[in-house]
Amino acid sequence: MTRVHCAQPAPRVADLPHNRELSVSAVRGAAARGADVIVLPELVTSGYRLSSVAEAASVALTPDDPLFAEWGRAAPDSVVVGGFCERGAGGRLHNSAAVLDRGELVAAYRKTHLWDEEKLLFTPGSAAPPVLDTSRGRIGVLICYDLEFPELTRKLALEGADLLAVPTNWPLVPRPAGERPPEVVIAMAAARVNGVAIACCDRAGTERGTRWTEGSAVIDHEGWVRAEADESGCAEADLDLAASRTKRRTAHADLFADRRPELY
Amino acid sequence: MTRVHCAQPAPRVADLPHNRELSVSAVRGAAARGADVIVLPELVTSGYRLSSVAEAASVALTPDDPLFAEWGRAAPDSVVVGGFCERGAGGRLHNSAAVLDRGELVAAYRKTHLWDEEKLLFTPGSAAPPVLDTSRGRIGVLICYDLEFPELTRKLALEGADLLAVPTNWPLVPRPAGERPPEVVIAMAAARVNGVAIACCDRAGTERGTRWTEGSAVIDHEGWVRAEADESGCAEADLDLAASRTKRRTAHADLFADRRPELY
Repeated sequence: MTRVHCAQPAPRVADLPHNRELSVSAVRGAAARGADVIVLPELVTSGYRLSSVAEAASVALTPDDPLFAEWGRAAPDSVVVGGFCERGAGGRLHNSAAVLDRGELVAAYRKTHLWDEEKLLFTPGSAAPPVLDTSRGRIGVLICYDLEFPELTRKLALEGADLLAVPTNWPLVPRPAGERPPEVVIAMAAARVNGVAIACCDRAGTERGTRWTEGSAVIDHEGWVRAEADESGCAEADLDLAASRTKRRTAHADLFADRRPELY
Repeated sequence: MTRVHCAQPAPRVADLPHNRELSVSAVRGAAARGADVIVLPELVTSGYRLSSVAEAASVALTPDDPLFAEWGRAAPDSVVVGGFCERGAGGRLHNSAAVLDRGELVAAYRKTHLWDEEKLLFTPGSAAPPVLDTSRGRIGVLICYDLEFPELTRKLALEGADLLAVPTNWPLVPRPAGERPPEVVIAMAAARVNGVAIACCDRAGTERGTRWTEGSAVIDHEGWVRAEADESGCAEADLDLAASRTKRRTAHADLFADRRPELY
């Protein structure tokens, strides 16, 4: 079994020292609980409601920033996936996710589907997200709105992902009484139709008037929510990631073999 | 507003006269309630648990069968979508859906994704499902398992569907307490990420040991269930189908324009 842990803290906007401490502490806490895979929110180092390119640039990091090595030291036996504001070539800013495996940075993915006013701050990634062969399984990385493009979840599943790790910041939106957040419904469906586990790590708090859904969820390969954020702000479940490797559902049904790619 | 009605009867397997009466009665009842779009279950004329090709052939129909004209007469001002066992060229059998608009047959779609043992009876369709410009809006037609292929729901939405009409037969599968049927979760997500309404019409009863989910649902373009089957066996809601025609969600977010097709 693989212990998948989403830590859902409340970063402070544009406060790098605070968020550094907050994120390292969250990673350390998860590692102490035996987490194999630790997911942090989108933009956990910078906060989300950055008011200008200048403010975002003031808290932008490169993937070789010592902060990521700190995450690695805090969980030296785990995979860690967390969001940050990235400073790229020519000073361009990206909404990115760093991935560490056993203390080493193994990838930095730039969000390819920017939501709303993110387009005023960030340059979208030019490459599809990776599926990484880590010490804890094959992990695909998406960031927030990326998850709402079924082409992309399908692509990562077809490339062999066991688990999709999804740093998110979900602004709270209206929903009918008794319903799950719409983003969780989308994740459940993506998990079920692709036979892949999904861990979405949302954030907490209110930032410059924006409330967050606090909807972190660990979802199994059949699409069922196995853990939601509790009062401690964590969602954690032990998943059988090997179950993501068969797409056969009955003697004659197979989620992938039954596709008709010539028709779409 | 468009009144969308799913009628969820319990057909009898291989009993064409019974199912003829049942389906015509369901269509007439829906029309009397002012339904603009009426969806019947998959294979409503034949039943589902057909035990052999010979038995399926004994209740197979061609699209010019008088039964469909009866559906048309029962709802002369509506669109009707319902499933049937189709006899095609060379005696091949198909799991199909007939579509009538104002009494006239306008399409017969052959299911392209056959579930499990359906593969032992039916030949899958060789053409993607249509989006039909009907008197009641642009309607895409899928059958049951088709809905679980996000490539296909996306395709029909991109082709301009306002509503997906989905005759289904959902065998009852286990689900955690308090959860919706997994197929409904998949439909909700497909509706939300594509901004398209979806009407899934399931069936009732038990047939040769198979229980059905009785999970008919009318879902709006934001992915929320607006009606589920009640004790009368109907799910009916008035939907604003014009709302499916804009994919813009905020000043800078658009479900379709935000796609990155070059990446997938």
